[in-house]
Amino acid sequence: MRVLGIDPGLRNMGWGVISVDGPRLRHVANGVIQTTADGSAQDLGARLSVLFRGLTEVIAEYRPDAAAVEQTFVNKDAAGTLKLGQARGIALLAPAEAGIAVGEYAPNAVKKTVVGVGHAGKEQVQHMVRVQLPGVQFNGPDSADALAIAICHAHHLQGRTLRVAGLRQGVA
Amino acid sequence: MRVLGIDPGLRNMGWGVISVDGPRLRHVANGVIQTTADGSAQDLGARLSVLFRGLTEVIAEYRPDAAAVEQTFVNKDAAGTLKLGQARGIALLAPAEAGIAVGEYAPNAVKKTVVGVGHAGKEQVQHMVRVQLPGVQFNGPDSADALAIAICHAHHLQGRTLRVAGLRQGVA
Repeated sequence: MRVLGIDPGLRNMGWGVISVDGPRLRHVANGVIQTTADGSAQDLGARLSVLFRGLTEVIAEYRPDAAAVEQTFVNKDAAGTLKLGQARGIALLAPAEAGIAVGEYAPNAVKKTVVGVGHAGKEQVQHMVRVQLPGVQFNGPDSADALAIAICHAHHLQGRTLRVAGLRQGVA
Repeated sequence: MRVLGIDPGLRNMGWGVISVDGPRLRHVANGVIQTTADGSAQDLGARLSVLFRGLTEVIAEYRPDAAAVEQTFVNKDAAGTLKLGQARGIALLAPAEAGIAVGEYAPNAVKKTVVGVGHAGKEQVQHMVRVQLPGVQFNGPDSADALAIAICHAHHLQGRTLRVAGLRQGVA
């Protein structure tokens, strides 16, 4: 089974695909779909289109069976939250349009599953993603987060307790 | 020329299409795409899919040349703003995917163009939409707002001053 994780953002949409074979997780691919603002009026629609097409291509190429998106609204202001929401709408739409069920996890839930504690820093998360996916190379911090979301979803799909136990052995 | 106006919302996505022939505006169609929450985990992606397909169908059927979306983040809380952002992302994506440029207007700009003042109430807006589009029947308040957004965009596309003058004559 393949799981796609998505870390949504309007400027940087991180994605990561892992394969799940019993207790074994394997890295398949990761990347970041980037859009830049050109300041024009039609700009936002075009940027969302780039994100939608990018994710649709990733899904067509790697054919995940399940997907998960980070559930977050940590922006300080309403304008930032609205922007994030727009990008997140695309992150949820692309798998849904491909007929793939989409899970959602709060950032703390992702950290708790991947690292073992909900308040882990970025470096701890990246470390544990490397432990779980030997040989992985991150194409940027957003794709590391996306892989962490995919790992979290794989654990939840498989039955959480066993996998978290396995993870903790991995750390020790 | 045909203009599509969209009033974005996750539960109710209002849309309205008008035709613009020189100074004359004409109602073409309006409606509301509705989604209901079923509380499941995959629910949100499926709802966004319903909105995206609904808008894509409207665009395929009425073939607008231009589109506009209300630019708003009036929700009291971050969770509500994020939800609105997700729906708004779809409202911007659907026309962009069809190659149609999308304008954005703040609610006050829509009211100022359609009614003449930025702080007009819903009933005043609906009244002026009826004056501008004789014989129109609204399929709900969200489609009335969507038609107001389409009228606003038509004015901006044509050169605003002339049209606002015409509108004021319509009120007197």
